Amino acid sequence: MKFIIVRDRLLDALNHVMKAVSGKTTIPILTGIKIDVTKDGVTLTGSDTDITIQTFIPAEEDAKQNVTIVESGSIVLQARMFNEIVRKLPTNEVEIQVTNEVQTHIRSGKSIFHLIASDANEYPLLPNINQDASFPMPADLLKSMIRETVFAVAVTESRPVLTGVNWIIKDQSLICVATDSHRLARRKAKMEQVQEDYDVVIPGKSLNELNKILENTNTPVEIVITEQQVLFKTDNVLFFSRLLEGNYPDTDRLIPNEFQTTMKINGKELLQAIDRASLLARGNSHNVVRLETLSEESIEISSNSPEIGKVQEEISLDLCEGEQLKISFSAKYMMEALKAIGEDHVIVQFTGAMRPFILRSLEDDTILQLIVPIRTN
Amino acid sequence: MKFIIVRDRLLDALNHVMKAVSGKTTIPILTGIKIDVTKDGVTLTGSDTDITIQTFIPAEEDAKQNVTIVESGSIVLQARMFNEIVRKLPTNEVEIQVTNEVQTHIRSGKSIFHLIASDANEYPLLPNINQDASFPMPADLLKSMIRETVFAVAVTESRPVLTGVNWIIKDQSLICVATDSHRLARRKAKMEQVQEDYDVVIPGKSLNELNKILENTNTPVEIVITEQQVLFKTDNVLFFSRLLEGNYPDTDRLIPNEFQTTMKINGKELLQAIDRASLLARGNSHNVVRLETLSEESIEISSNSPEIGKVQEEISLDLCEGEQLKISFSAKYMMEALKAIGEDHVIVQFTGAMRPFILRSLEDDTILQLIVPIRTN
Repeated sequence: MKFIIVRDRLLDALNHVMKAVSGKTTIPILTGIKIDVTKDGVTLTGSDTDITIQTFIPAEEDAKQNVTIVESGSIVLQARMFNEIVRKLPTNEVEIQVTNEVQTHIRSGKSIFHLIASDANEYPLLPNINQDASFPMPADLLKSMIRETVFAVAVTESRPVLTGVNWIIKDQSLICVATDSHRLARRKAKMEQVQEDYDVVIPGKSLNELNKILENTNTPVEIVITEQQVLFKTDNVLFFSRLLEGNYPDTDRLIPNEFQTTMKINGKELLQAIDRASLLARGNSHNVVRLETLSEESIEISSNSPEIGKVQEEISLDLCEGEQLKISFSAKYMMEALKAIGEDHVIVQFTGAMRPFILRSLEDDTILQLIVPIRTN
Repeated sequence: MKFIIVRDRLLDALNHVMKAVSGKTTIPILTGIKIDVTKDGVTLTGSDTDITIQTFIPAEEDAKQNVTIVESGSIVLQARMFNEIVRKLPTNEVEIQVTNEVQTHIRSGKSIFHLIASDANEYPLLPNINQDASFPMPADLLKSMIRETVFAVAVTESRPVLTGVNWIIKDQSLICVATDSHRLARRKAKMEQVQEDYDVVIPGKSLNELNKILENTNTPVEIVITEQQVLFKTDNVLFFSRLLEGNYPDTDRLIPNEFQTTMKINGKELLQAIDRASLLARGNSHNVVRLETLSEESIEISSNSPEIGKVQEEISLDLCEGEQLKISFSAKYMMEALKAIGEDHVIVQFTGAMRPFILRSLEDDTILQLIVPIRTN
């Protein structure tokens, strides 16, 4: 195996596959990156068994020569070391050559690294996925579906299925739902080019890594869903994730549809007031802040910490309908929900101090956030 | 006590004094910041007993009103909480008022914080320093004297005096020396306005914090050295540090003055080559890289790690005089020394593979770095 490659292009590709390489794997070969060289270009693969990322660097791209192939072949190089070496090489031209099966020589300028590699045959095969039934989704839409739901997955493993986001595709629309049973995030989108129905749970960690790789453009990502795996395909990147097993709870029945109090409020003002109130809420175990209606035109956000002090702040409402209210909730959950909505005009609807309440955007009815209040004395 | 202050000016001052506040103090009052309000302005004080920083915010500055004093007084507020609150306040106008001796009210826009403060009388007094015998040093010179020496102080406490930088003022020149007994950094400067001689050891930590506060301008900093304390004074900041007790070793005799091999080399090229070589040096305990003369015109930097591989790189010399040489040293020490010199043209002088070697700048004879080599097989 021998090829000469443009360092910056190799670094870009490495940045992607490194996201799948874990320092904590129990399978030694997975601390490495597999490099496959054919006459068409160079393929890099990284995996932690849950996530597998493969990037392809074409020999030629946009009439530019990325790679000069001298001899094809495959090898596995220790991922972190290889990544750091490439990062620090002195010139933008890198020659990589394998002799005696595993002796790898990396040359750049007057610098030569000799690394002991591993046999590519020891590297696990890619998940075997039939790619016939794929459907497209614009990358920017996919990114916002992830961003607006994934933060609400459970972080503990007591119910593993809740550490993922439930993707339900039905009647040509996609519903993403995440809940840790104290709050819930839901996002809907029309999916006109999908033929089949699906109901799967994608690990939150996979979606977070996918979000980092995708660019915020409307370039379509091809999605293939099978029984145990999901595959996201962009031009030069294949992103595989295993699916979570188990039945995701039916969340529709958790969402209230009758309300006693409805407020229209500036979401950014509310977010900042809760951020301030949370400073004094750190002393209490659940980071609790209080919301209280003062009139039909204003609410008060407050919090206190017995030994440190208290904070209170009045916020004007655009509208308030229904009953007066005093309610307590987690500042963290409320801030994350408001950030996910990310709009100036937010509707918050309550069904009393002890029942879950919901947040929606005035402009966009595809997003819904639900928070379970906290009982205080 | 009551005053109204411009938030941004308060934040600047807080940024400075926070550098002296430690989370780990055993003296509870020192987790706080003392605020003293007089008709002239507001003074903030933070301290961890080793370092004390005091900043003054004048009521008026450059014909701009920073503070409106309503009632003078003093109070101690929990430092982190106060800092975070000020950072997150909604408007640039902040009113701070104390009622019932310790009830502190911070108002900004529609937000009101009520904090329980501590009595300012419990806060320790500033070190009592006679400021008659001060001398000036430009801030940028002071910063480079710190930057070029402080990294070489000992990090372990086995010989506490080595955790500081030795400042010797004699014959109207200042010599700063730091050593951890494996390497040494020395920097000299002319000090024409100093009247007395001094020989003190300033804690490395204090100098690092001072360096963060000073701006890189030629504005003079007034320095006062007493038996137990040193004080650095700028326009609105007083920076006190305790001095370390104990005799600093005489380092002059460690510095060789006869050499067997002298090289002139591009310091940045050498730094980058050692940075690359150090990637493979992590496996070995002392992060060892090797330097070997190849000819009168070039050297090789190399390193190896038995299970991972090896690296070698040739570097051209501007000049090489004297004997051929093979020597091993810590990559970290060498990189820090080259960064401190920070010049393209560096002179490296050796007295054989087992003896300390020195690095100097070709352009500037005030800086000297010494490194003790590492014995390898």
